[in-house]
Amino acid sequence: MIFRIATRRDLPAVLALLADEDRVLDPASMPVGEEHERAFAAIESDARNEMLVLTDADTEAGGGGTVVGCLQLTYIPGLGQGGQERALVEAVRVRADRRGEGLGAELMRLAAERARGRGCGLIQLTSNKRRTAAHRFYERLGFARSHEGFKLPLERP
Amino acid sequence: MIFRIATRRDLPAVLALLADEDRVLDPASMPVGEEHERAFAAIESDARNEMLVLTDADTEAGGGGTVVGCLQLTYIPGLGQGGQERALVEAVRVRADRRGEGLGAELMRLAAERARGRGCGLIQLTSNKRRTAAHRFYERLGFARSHEGFKLPLERP
Repeated sequence: MIFRIATRRDLPAVLALLADEDRVLDPASMPVGEEHERAFAAIESDARNEMLVLTDADTEAGGGGTVVGCLQLTYIPGLGQGGQERALVEAVRVRADRRGEGLGAELMRLAAERARGRGCGLIQLTSNKRRTAAHRFYERLGFARSHEGFKLPLERP
Repeated sequence: MIFRIATRRDLPAVLALLADEDRVLDPASMPVGEEHERAFAAIESDARNEMLVLTDADTEAGGGGTVVGCLQLTYIPGLGQGGQERALVEAVRVRADRRGEGLGAELMRLAAERARGRGCGLIQLTSNKRRTAAHRFYERLGFARSHEGFKLPLERP
């Protein structure tokens, strides 16, 4: 398995993972909208954001391989914890037909290792209250379920 | 009340708010360490991070006024929600002797307005499970307590 920063070529595969957690969608069939191009470019050009992918193999120079998982890391500067950054994890996905192989745990382990290597003091995420299997998964990985997560949609101005 | 981006001059007052939620500490007595300088500079220079303060009045050009509350906003680019950013709120504080005046609600209202004005589709935060009064506060403001918040401290590499 290769864990690496996603390139523009991975975008359809990442969108396929995000679009449906329970089915395998063909990346080639995913419409890549202007909003996706813009958001991907924003992540790619931001020194504190990374879209990371887990791939089966890296058969070609400069990327390649089949994307089987992804997550986004955001490194947040802050005044607490001795001024260390904290890492926020969003958009964690493992391809539906590749569950049960430990890829999710591997993805999270690699993400934590990456954040630690950068000097982050903490890694954090939220998971919908309905996703009880995911909660057990994060607790098995050593995460403490210490917080309530609140969200408020914002209407367009 | 003035809601504005914190300047370096506000740093001791912000550190005083963060250091003890339940007591009023004198900003002049707060040690400002190199790690705080570094973290504040990181926030200030990052286009997707803002330390915001609520002050009693803005009596002097270029800042001033007594800091009575603070929060940090991080604007996170992402592929979901039509490519809109989401706003993460951290480090929400209202000075202990100024509680019960609605300043916390005002702070959050201004933060949501700011995030909406920027084009964010969502504003989110986590609150420690022990802070039940804070949970009721966020729910009154319209936030849905929809997620579990997980944290994992990372040891230094």
